[in-house]
Amino acid sequence: MDKTLGQQMLFGGDYNPEQWPENSWESDIQLLQQAHINSATINVFSWALLEPAEGQFDFTKLKKIIKLLTKYNFKIVLATATAALPAWLVRQYPAVGRVNPNGIQQQHGKRHNACPNNPDFQRLASQLVTQLAERFANLPNLAYWHISNEYGGLCYCDNCAQAFRDWLQVRYGDIDTLNSAWNSHFWSHTYTDWIDILPPMRTTDLFSNGKPVLGGAALDYQRFQSDSLLANYTMERDIIRQFDATTPMTTNLMGSQKDLDYFKWAPEMDIISWDNYPSYDTPASYTAMQHDLMFGLKQKPFLLMEQTPNQQNWQPFNALKKPGEVRMFSFQAIAHGANSVQFFQLKQSLSGAEKFHGAIIPHSGQTTGRIFKEIAQLGTDFQQLPASLLDTSKKAQVALVFDWDSFWGLENSIGPTTKLDYVQMVHRYYALFYQAGIAVDLISTDMALIDYDLVLAPKLYAANAQFTAKVSEYVAHGGQFVTTTMAGLTDDHDHIIPGGYPGAFHEVLGLTFDETDALPNEQSVALVDQQTNVLGTGTTLCDLIQVSTAEPLAYYGDSVFYQGTPAVTVNHFGAGKAYYIGTEPDSDFLNKLLINLIPLTQIQEQHNPHVEITTRETTDEAFHFVINTTDQTQPTINPYPGQVDLLSGQTYSEQLTLDPFAVLIFRVKKS
Amino acid sequence: MDKTLGQQMLFGGDYNPEQWPENSWESDIQLLQQAHINSATINVFSWALLEPAEGQFDFTKLKKIIKLLTKYNFKIVLATATAALPAWLVRQYPAVGRVNPNGIQQQHGKRHNACPNNPDFQRLASQLVTQLAERFANLPNLAYWHISNEYGGLCYCDNCAQAFRDWLQVRYGDIDTLNSAWNSHFWSHTYTDWIDILPPMRTTDLFSNGKPVLGGAALDYQRFQSDSLLANYTMERDIIRQFDATTPMTTNLMGSQKDLDYFKWAPEMDIISWDNYPSYDTPASYTAMQHDLMFGLKQKPFLLMEQTPNQQNWQPFNALKKPGEVRMFSFQAIAHGANSVQFFQLKQSLSGAEKFHGAIIPHSGQTTGRIFKEIAQLGTDFQQLPASLLDTSKKAQVALVFDWDSFWGLENSIGPTTKLDYVQMVHRYYALFYQAGIAVDLISTDMALIDYDLVLAPKLYAANAQFTAKVSEYVAHGGQFVTTTMAGLTDDHDHIIPGGYPGAFHEVLGLTFDETDALPNEQSVALVDQQTNVLGTGTTLCDLIQVSTAEPLAYYGDSVFYQGTPAVTVNHFGAGKAYYIGTEPDSDFLNKLLINLIPLTQIQEQHNPHVEITTRETTDEAFHFVINTTDQTQPTINPYPGQVDLLSGQTYSEQLTLDPFAVLIFRVKKS
Amino acid sequence: MDKTLGQQMLFGGDYNPEQWPENSWESDIQLLQQAHINSATINVFSWALLEPAEGQFDFTKLKKIIKLLTKYNFKIVLATATAALPAWLVRQYPAVGRVNPNGIQQQHGKRHNACPNNPDFQRLASQLVTQLAERFANLPNLAYWHISNEYGGLCYCDNCAQAFRDWLQVRYGDIDTLNSAWNSHFWSHTYTDWIDILPPMRTTDLFSNGKPVLGGAALDYQRFQSDSLLANYTMERDIIRQFDATTPMTTNLMGSQKDLDYFKWAPEMDIISWDNYPSYDTPASYTAMQHDLMFGLKQKPFLLMEQTPNQQNWQPFNALKKPGEVRMFSFQAIAHGANSVQFFQLKQSLSGAEKFHGAIIPHSGQTTGRIFKEIAQLGTDFQQLPASLLDTSKKAQVALVFDWDSFWGLENSIGPTTKLDYVQMVHRYYALFYQAGIAVDLISTDMALIDYDLVLAPKLYAANAQFTAKVSEYVAHGGQFVTTTMAGLTDDHDHIIPGGYPGAFHEVLGLTFDETDALPNEQSVALVDQQTNVLGTGTTLCDLIQVSTAEPLAYYGDSVFYQGTPAVTVNHFGAGKAYYIGTEPDSDFLNKLLINLIPLTQIQEQHNPHVEITTRETTDEAFHFVINTTDQTQPTINPYPGQVDLLSGQTYSEQLTLDPFAVLIFRVKKS
Repeated sequence: MDKTLGQQMLFGGDYNPEQWPENSWESDIQLLQQAHINSATINVFSWALLEPAEGQFDFTKLKKIIKLLTKYNFKIVLATATAALPAWLVRQYPAVGRVNPNGIQQQHGKRHNACPNNPDFQRLASQLVTQLAERFANLPNLAYWHISNEYGGLCYCDNCAQAFRDWLQVRYGDIDTLNSAWNSHFWSHTYTDWIDILPPMRTTDLFSNGKPVLGGAALDYQRFQSDSLLANYTMERDIIRQFDATTPMTTNLMGSQKDLDYFKWAPEMDIISWDNYPSYDTPASYTAMQHDLMFGLKQKPFLLMEQTPNQQNWQPFNALKKPGEVRMFSFQAIAHGANSVQFFQLKQSLSGAEKFHGAIIPHSGQTTGRIFKEIAQLGTDFQQLPASLLDTSKKAQVALVFDWDSFWGLENSIGPTTKLDYVQMVHRYYALFYQAGIAVDLISTDMALIDYDLVLAPKLYAANAQFTAKVSEYVAHGGQFVTTTMAGLTDDHDHIIPGGYPGAFHEVLGLTFDETDALPNEQSVALVDQQTNVLGTGTTLCDLIQVSTAEPLAYYGDSVFYQGTPAVTVNHFGAGKAYYIGTEPDSDFLNKLLINLIPLTQIQEQHNPHVEITTRETTDEAFHFVINTTDQTQPTINPYPGQVDLLSGQTYSEQLTLDPFAVLIFRVKKS
Repeated sequence: MDKTLGQQMLFGGDYNPEQWPENSWESDIQLLQQAHINSATINVFSWALLEPAEGQFDFTKLKKIIKLLTKYNFKIVLATATAALPAWLVRQYPAVGRVNPNGIQQQHGKRHNACPNNPDFQRLASQLVTQLAERFANLPNLAYWHISNEYGGLCYCDNCAQAFRDWLQVRYGDIDTLNSAWNSHFWSHTYTDWIDILPPMRTTDLFSNGKPVLGGAALDYQRFQSDSLLANYTMERDIIRQFDATTPMTTNLMGSQKDLDYFKWAPEMDIISWDNYPSYDTPASYTAMQHDLMFGLKQKPFLLMEQTPNQQNWQPFNALKKPGEVRMFSFQAIAHGANSVQFFQLKQSLSGAEKFHGAIIPHSGQTTGRIFKEIAQLGTDFQQLPASLLDTSKKAQVALVFDWDSFWGLENSIGPTTKLDYVQMVHRYYALFYQAGIAVDLISTDMALIDYDLVLAPKLYAANAQFTAKVSEYVAHGGQFVTTTMAGLTDDHDHIIPGGYPGAFHEVLGLTFDETDALPNEQSVALVDQQTNVLGTGTTLCDLIQVSTAEPLAYYGDSVFYQGTPAVTVNHFGAGKAYYIGTEPDSDFLNKLLINLIPLTQIQEQHNPHVEITTRETTDEAFHFVINTTDQTQPTINPYPGQVDLLSGQTYSEQLTLDPFAVLIFRVKKS
Repeated sequence: MDKTLGQQMLFGGDYNPEQWPENSWESDIQLLQQAHINSATINVFSWALLEPAEGQFDFTKLKKIIKLLTKYNFKIVLATATAALPAWLVRQYPAVGRVNPNGIQQQHGKRHNACPNNPDFQRLASQLVTQLAERFANLPNLAYWHISNEYGGLCYCDNCAQAFRDWLQVRYGDIDTLNSAWNSHFWSHTYTDWIDILPPMRTTDLFSNGKPVLGGAALDYQRFQSDSLLANYTMERDIIRQFDATTPMTTNLMGSQKDLDYFKWAPEMDIISWDNYPSYDTPASYTAMQHDLMFGLKQKPFLLMEQTPNQQNWQPFNALKKPGEVRMFSFQAIAHGANSVQFFQLKQSLSGAEKFHGAIIPHSGQTTGRIFKEIAQLGTDFQQLPASLLDTSKKAQVALVFDWDSFWGLENSIGPTTKLDYVQMVHRYYALFYQAGIAVDLISTDMALIDYDLVLAPKLYAANAQFTAKVSEYVAHGGQFVTTTMAGLTDDHDHIIPGGYPGAFHEVLGLTFDETDALPNEQSVALVDQQTNVLGTGTTLCDLIQVSTAEPLAYYGDSVFYQGTPAVTVNHFGAGKAYYIGTEPDSDFLNKLLINLIPLTQIQEQHNPHVEITTRETTDEAFHFVINTTDQTQPTINPYPGQVDLLSGQTYSEQLTLDPFAVLIFRVKKS
């Protein structure tokens, strides 16, 4: 047999030796080996230990733990330790702490706390990383460099303000161009000097609800802050690359978080890695979408850098993970493209903010507990699987556009309703396909559309000209495109595209409109066909569509003054079709409308929505994952009757009942 | 025929040319003319353009737009552009920004952002207004000067603190008088030097709920801040008056807002103007009350300076205005005394905080839309009406006292309940009469009572001696006076008037009491007659009344220990009657008690509460407005059967069914 | 007859002469005498009057009021006036104001506003107290010195930061010991210099929810701040003691407030006093528990320094006290150990934050009102009672441990649930016994257990080694011990005790576990016996108990994966039993489990939960209080049939119906 997945794949997680006596490190590693753990992420928060005073470095402990891990043949994910500032550093350089949107300077404390544009932070972080790279480049067991940790958060300090001005000068060249881009004449904001530009804060241009006066300025500030943290990443990366030409570098991302435009980050990263922390009530489709977004950043497999082996601690109610649930989450990640299974953390802290966060070695220090056994079982599972799984990838017929500019711009807007949650809206569309067993690729506006049978771009508020043109070309060549209310409205600067909504998509959709009603929470409107048969219900927003070439698929019913106005349309455009959904329909309506736009297999037609069927493949072979995402048994149709499940070694008939959290993996050679 | 209303009355709104290319201005005006728009409010937020650097003025664009508007014979409402500070000004004079009650200094951003007591703001605003007045006084088409915009908001900076001390020295003369007025010995607040007096802030003397330790100090600070902004207004006014002897001046007010005591502002204004922004769920009676309050400030017609031609954007759910709804709102305003119909805004912004706020020219730039047509129809309507309507006024039998001292004092009080909302309480009483088709005048405590059949002063917490004496005289001479729990309690300094509640109104009401119960949300108490028949229900507060000369009209029922105690009373005092309502009764109870205190017409007895009947008149003739305020058809009795409706040219019989949002106007010569 | 209680006991309250004209003081005292008031607390907030400028003292008014009170033979409780800073003091020494956890410096305003570690405050307060003590020591009518007022609140200023470092150096000696105690290596917090230690604030190491990164640091900061305010107390106390060798000193405490560890304060106080302010919906058991906690601080009678004679003003709904309710509260206090009945306040303020707070002399100034009569009746009642009541004490069979370290540590923890309210959890256990008529002593972890039949320590999260050992010894010698989920987890530094939960109580409970589930609000779990009969319901938290020597009393039912796991256990340990409750059971379940652990009298078995039966006694005689705590009549069994009630002079049979708020007191000689 070839190498197993268990031999090849990282199966490990964060280990913080600095929290434990040195004489316990080796026995910890020995315990972890009992669960087949083969790697450790170290040095994430060790700056203060590595550099107890400015310029004084001490790598004794780090060398010792590396030596020990190497002795036990653990792969090492080596962090650069820059994610939390030492206290002395903040004391000596108080401006290194971030300033919050209320203008309050943060002092030493918490983590992820450095202003990205602070020159002292940049200098001292560079020095530390240089020291690390010099010493630890090309270590035999070094699997990855882990740069900083969970980048995120915004800073509003004077250094950022000045760096923002520099960034804007590069972007706009002269101040009149900026005034025009931002519509600065609004409320006498006209800038006559770059020095007058301030970050949009509660003390400057944000209202108490956090929304900006100048949407263009706010959008640019979010782009600038994302770029600033990315510059911190590339600064460390470039230093390490001087010393280590080959070890891949990553930083752990956080799914559909708002602060960073990960599509701009991905090209700078050797491999994507991310931290998956579903809550007790997170839908399986939501977790799946997050994985697909992380896959989508590079359209390549990624590392699952963190998940919890049991309960979290920072959610309101931190339910225990049920028997089999962590295993299910692990295989769900792999099915969606994860090429590692790593945990936070390997040994549970005795004190500090995470002391109630689950770990593989619990507070009891015992390996007899349920969780330790489940992790060990997972390690055993990985011995049953071939390492060649890591060479597979995935590709869907359906694409869903995710766009941070739209995320920011939409949620910055004042009106027409406060009920605009970009991620939830994108997830609604994802979930429809997920529940039908249909794979979806998450893509950026920069990616190619042409290979997809169907492209959805819900709430794509910011529609740059390149994407708009690409959509038109895609549809003209036979593609199917779906978009929704609030889409296509603005250009790159949060300017409404004049000439009637939905601006950019006007032509491809064959419609226009002037008005969008906003319904209060307690109101809804019937969606009807031409004979006024009820097809469904709309809520939240209702566009008053005037079709030109588009054909109505549903109209508003009789509870509103605009009854009979088209609510949902399709436009034949070239060889393809473009759908517009001018309200928030109920899920049944959406389901009927959208699922059949792609050819369905028999399996998909009878799909149990609680069972995931996901495929990773090469040109030669496919791995099909069948996963019960629930704690109940689930009947399902086995798409691979008679095939051997790699985990159990068994075959199954076509009618299948899956145990709670059951996972089957079928390896099928392509004919 | 004489001039039409459409020829004479301002029908226009805000236009912000600085947001548009100059070559589009003329075509915008031409479009607006298609909707019979005849005026524009300009220059509201142009300071940064007019004065791009300190002392450097550039009026080129302003002159150009004025010239264009004049060419098309648009009346101009010319704003003074001081409502939003240029960025350079805040940079050069950082103290010009306001300080919030948490002590945080605001930097450049948003609008309405100048500290009213900042000498640099005063100097620079004066300079700008001087420049404007020099150039634009007595322009042929200048209809009004519009000073600043929507004054409001409080500042807590050091300049304000010092100005407050000066204001207090004028008011109190010596520090012991102030200590006595404020009861400063409370919690060791005794002041020995004026310099120790600080604005009541969260960092000084306000609790985290915003309530003050010293009620007298908080009341004085609110008066002082209202006076400070008023001084900004009169500063600009006086400059303009030096150059322009005749053009009337105004600033756009905001109904029953809390910050400014408009009854002190009104004498300084040539004409009242205000901005009306009802939400989708605002009762018609609430809007009517706001108009009547604005009328009441001078007891004269006013300008409707702003309303939206369609949806707002800053409310949680910005519903579209329904067909006919904007027309209805416009005529409702006129019926209550508006002598203009103006909109915010004429052309919809493409970017900035208001980009989703409705406008007459929408983002599409088209005039084919529903809203443009409705506005044009309204313009046509105005052609059907005689300009003499503008010479009419209105007068009611019933007066409702509105008092900012009571508003402030009541809502500053700690106890007996947190459920004290002054405006809502006043509206409860207004709505009773409104729904019966009975006109109500909103008046201040300074105005004459003698002409009214009934005067209501609900929750008149602050009862100065002059008003108290006037009430006694009014009742003694045959008037009917109604007041409620929490009324009459305090003097001018938020001092309880000793000797038993309700202090000031003790004698005229013929009762006294020591105790007021506060009921939690879930509790209520029956109101019964002497035979314990249930008359209604009381909530929130229950005074334990001891009558002297008053006669009980209702008693508390048996769920409370004070059952049998009078809850509602009437006192025969001289030739009149004074009613006291010692709890919060349900609306049916209130209705039965109060509506019949004035003689009702047959119409009023059978009134449909969803239909407004409002009259404006001169000594010779009357205009009667019959308005369906709802989007449903409404049956009503036509008070003017056989009369011609000016809008439709038709006559109607006595039984009338009004279409949704229908408006009829009957002009009746007085016999 | 001997002296009456009315002659001997303080029956008075706060009087603020500075709020009233001097010529009204004597008549106020005369009025109060009509209600049998015999004492006054004065000088609480007079600093600004006593010292109008630094170093300039004026005691004229204070001497005058003391002279007047002495003339009428009022006992005087003399406050030191340091609880609110004069305005001049904050102006001259701005750092004297506290800094809040957001880093905002407070200026002059409100009260209880001095930084405890500010040297200027300490110096000036010492000077003032020296002046007071020199003048007023050993006054003939001086009953108590009242130091400052309602100590509480935390400060985060630079003075506090430095004092904290000094406090830590004393506690930990060297910085490595501190790093170890705090697990500072977590998130790179390692300290290399004391100067780097900052108070845990929102701008440093607290999250936005107020929870800390380093639990040990937060716990120490709370201890330090409690100690800092205590040092303010002892500073004043020691000055006074130099001049006045005998008069007892106190400060008014506030029940189970969070800021101060009263068990550390109690030894420094001559007598405990406290302020009791139940709301309209406060359970009688909660008030009783508060009294018992205050008694428990020294296990000695205390002063009821404040209660309101009628409604409060600062609660959301300030209901009037019903007829008899204040009398009931007064006797409830005495029953639980109060040796005074004092009110806030004697005369109602006309202005300021407390103007709507009830008082004995109301705003009307009249003595004819209900409340004045009720207070006078209470004074008369006290004439019926013997002064020897003051020599009695109380002692229960059941002890309930209250622990500020656990309070702080538990509520600082992040996870496993946000539903952790320490005081409410302790009250649940108290209420069970209270409702059964069983007295409970509130004790600290330092007190002896050996005399109790049953010791409960719910949620005793912080379990120091001494207490743990004491529990083991207590149970081994035959005691009964009960503890719950979240108990025993941490040591003195908020470090989890390793080796498996529940850490410290592991052995005495005969069980261990690794996992605790957290249930969302909407979930619960059945508690069943071995035959799966349902015994009750658990919520919030579920420990997954593994018994060693313990015996399960209930198991989890079938809605959870851990069904069949023990949820509640008992362990026979030596001669005693230790109970563990691993979830939050419903009250019926708890009741059945716990009440029968002590021998019940027949009375207790049939106890009406709305009737309190409480006893104070000496070795020779007992005073039994029978109190109807409700406004309804209540049937009860009279435990003392045929005995004379001291208040009414009547005897009662065994079946008794108590009037609303009725109080009976039976004095029984012990045989």
